[in-house]
Amino acid sequence: EALLWKSKSTLTSFGVFCLQMGWGDLGVFGEPSKETPNLDQMASEGMLFLDFYTANPLCSPSRAALLTGRLPVRNGFYTTNAHARNAYTPQYIVGGIPDSELLLPELLKKAGYVNKIVGKWHLGHRPQFHPLKHGFDEWFGSPNCHFGPFDNRAFPNIPVYRDWEMIGRYYEDFKIDLKTGEANLTQIYLQEALDFISKQQASQQPFFLYWAIDATHAPVYASKHFLGTSQRGLYGDAVREIDDSVGKILKHLQNLGISENTFVFFTSDNGAALISAPKQGGSNGRFLCGKQTTFEGGMREPAIAWWPGHIPAGGVSHQLGNVMDLFTTSLSLAGLQPPGDRQIDGIDLLPAILQGELIDRPIFYYRGNEMMAVRVGLYKAHYWTWSNSWEEYSKGVDFCPGQNVSGVTTHTQEEHTTLPLLFHLGRDPGEKYPLSFASNEYQRAMERISAVVQQHRVTMVPGEPQLNVCDKAVM
Amino acid sequence: EALLWKSKSTLTSFGVFCLQMGWGDLGVFGEPSKETPNLDQMASEGMLFLDFYTANPLCSPSRAALLTGRLPVRNGFYTTNAHARNAYTPQYIVGGIPDSELLLPELLKKAGYVNKIVGKWHLGHRPQFHPLKHGFDEWFGSPNCHFGPFDNRAFPNIPVYRDWEMIGRYYEDFKIDLKTGEANLTQIYLQEALDFISKQQASQQPFFLYWAIDATHAPVYASKHFLGTSQRGLYGDAVREIDDSVGKILKHLQNLGISENTFVFFTSDNGAALISAPKQGGSNGRFLCGKQTTFEGGMREPAIAWWPGHIPAGGVSHQLGNVMDLFTTSLSLAGLQPPGDRQIDGIDLLPAILQGELIDRPIFYYRGNEMMAVRVGLYKAHYWTWSNSWEEYSKGVDFCPGQNVSGVTTHTQEEHTTLPLLFHLGRDPGEKYPLSFASNEYQRAMERISAVVQQHRVTMVPGEPQLNVCDKAVM
Repeated sequence: EALLWKSKSTLTSFGVFCLQMGWGDLGVFGEPSKETPNLDQMASEGMLFLDFYTANPLCSPSRAALLTGRLPVRNGFYTTNAHARNAYTPQYIVGGIPDSELLLPELLKKAGYVNKIVGKWHLGHRPQFHPLKHGFDEWFGSPNCHFGPFDNRAFPNIPVYRDWEMIGRYYEDFKIDLKTGEANLTQIYLQEALDFISKQQASQQPFFLYWAIDATHAPVYASKHFLGTSQRGLYGDAVREIDDSVGKILKHLQNLGISENTFVFFTSDNGAALISAPKQGGSNGRFLCGKQTTFEGGMREPAIAWWPGHIPAGGVSHQLGNVMDLFTTSLSLAGLQPPGDRQIDGIDLLPAILQGELIDRPIFYYRGNEMMAVRVGLYKAHYWTWSNSWEEYSKGVDFCPGQNVSGVTTHTQEEHTTLPLLFHLGRDPGEKYPLSFASNEYQRAMERISAVVQQHRVTMVPGEPQLNVCDKAVM
Repeated sequence: EALLWKSKSTLTSFGVFCLQMGWGDLGVFGEPSKETPNLDQMASEGMLFLDFYTANPLCSPSRAALLTGRLPVRNGFYTTNAHARNAYTPQYIVGGIPDSELLLPELLKKAGYVNKIVGKWHLGHRPQFHPLKHGFDEWFGSPNCHFGPFDNRAFPNIPVYRDWEMIGRYYEDFKIDLKTGEANLTQIYLQEALDFISKQQASQQPFFLYWAIDATHAPVYASKHFLGTSQRGLYGDAVREIDDSVGKILKHLQNLGISENTFVFFTSDNGAALISAPKQGGSNGRFLCGKQTTFEGGMREPAIAWWPGHIPAGGVSHQLGNVMDLFTTSLSLAGLQPPGDRQIDGIDLLPAILQGELIDRPIFYYRGNEMMAVRVGLYKAHYWTWSNSWEEYSKGVDFCPGQNVSGVTTHTQEEHTTLPLLFHLGRDPGEKYPLSFASNEYQRAMERISAVVQQHRVTMVPGEPQLNVCDKAVM
């Protein structure tokens, strides 16, 4: 059974990586408007992952982790400018994905795959970081977030590429109406995906499509047909359009007769951005806080695997999963081994997906250069806590709006390394009730967790940080 | 189609009324452990209500509303001892359901139904309030919550009845082990339900079964077979046992060949009791606060209608519903008209259930004698806010643990009657972002809401309060 796919030369792999859509944004995860019929159906035809995580609660490092199978602290997608601060690739950053990193498409290429990225790259905008230099054969999208419009003095608007060529810029050539929220980018991304799939099917080429859409990232947008259709406002309109697009892509695979040869995975790069909620940000359901934080709301992700004829319909998995696993799992689908010359953090999820196995593995919650927390089984230990600084908070920037757990959602960086804050995520998924330090349960759980953390620390060789920002005054 | 059931002389009606199980406790509503396969399947075979409410965020008034189809402020299940305070029927209270109220089983009896209540009555414990004096033909259960054990001096333990006869007491004859959480009461309640259904089916009698279980009310319990089976701890064990029992009852109806003649509705009497969480209380998902409050967490309920062959499988309804609707809907199922001599607040949900209609109706959120809030469409206006008092809060009693929305989850009773706090529950189901008073949206929505509230107020004739407590010093 597990070998079936290895014999198929046309096996294809398709990933949807949604920008900061939260766990609570899907009907199947309890969004009360229940407006994601296609994703809900994808789950009912495939397998729902309830305990799936990102490798970092921010976009760039999360994407670097997905494509390298390695923690950002290893692949360099972090900063040492400050302690426990996430970093990404704004226009003025000089860093990006190092050549020394082996990306998933580079490896798949060797097995004859044609690789395309549609949407946001986010691994550096300088020429040496171009996706086509890192294994992708095709690209339609942009190196950065669609922030803007910029005034074209300090910064130009973000460019949009087709392959090597810059074909325009957001706001100028690819309109985003900030007032109405109208933009037809998701429709363009959808068409790019459908066309690529058709082309590969026609030429009988195995393919890897990385569909990295961004409509749910502020400034949130939707195309005219979807504007005003959601109970949830503009953010919901964007979710509905993405949901509709996922449905169309799955249908396309079915119509082409290749759905049983195509492994599809839907997930998100970080939790919903509660700083942008409710107009420009989504929901993490009952989980604590959101994007940027190492609480569950920042890192637990909606996740669905779909592969008709292989994955049992309606399956539900409690396997602890991580976006880095998509690296290893995709290699496994292609019959490839992960590189042996470096530490790979992702695991092969196929035994969990196809045979319902539960693989024992920890989840590490990093924020920038610091391991903030670790999950082992149902226990999560926080070695450091903080939400965001008092300075930001006093200006109205709140990573945990409406939520306040005393001593947990702290506004200063609190060290708990000698006596970590421990939560049982089964009884308390919202991280509200730390276990008593004096309890037997705490002692037993921390013994197990400490061993895991010690092992992690002694084998950890951090990569050269790529996302440090130079002092502009010095530059 | 809608007349189909009227012609069936064996049409039966079956209600599950779960003690303070919250919206977020069901897998289908996003509980992350996903441990309610039977309820989830019930939803996939029936219709899920996403916007269903109780009539009061506390047990007794909610049950009185269910059985009378009337708001507690009309049927007397409230107190004027203090402003905006919920009340129930503790052992020392002298009040109960007035004889002047017409209960659902009294009316169904006239149409030949045999009525049984299994579990908690909660409408008064003195002889004149006995369920068999108010239309029920059979009772297995108790008049009150299973609090205890009592010392048998000031108070005896709560009695358990079979019909007219007291057959024992909790802790003495019906064991609840507070240390382990073990009690086999749900199994007893299940057997009572199965036996009653078998008996009615054998005698071809239409029946109404009100299955008012209480395992998820503190002190939470589960039978031995379920103890330790949930990721969620003891509370989850109790939920699993209830879920399993609901599955067995539905299966029993199917095995007896009467599932297409039996309308089944699952809901809860109030939101999860967050004061008891996480060990003894459940989850309201992303909704604000819990039991006792008029925020969504206190009053939005999980709700599923099931009637194979009549209700389209997998249906989802946004109809604003209320437990009081079960009164009117059940009468409609039995071919009866609601009483014409009094105000009935419940509406007939059958058009929503069978034809997918959306009936425009408001939801009133009462706390004791005060209308705290009202929902019209997707807007909810708070005329009064408070969670619980500073005095209670300072003692560690918190109705909104981990949640704090400035100016909303207030610890003093705040009046907003001249300028209500307005929320859009589609964009903001968590009631975190009040609309600007100055916005056009606020003005437009409040015009509509004010008319509804004015109409409600001029036609409101409060009943004699039944739940006032006498001054013990005077007694």
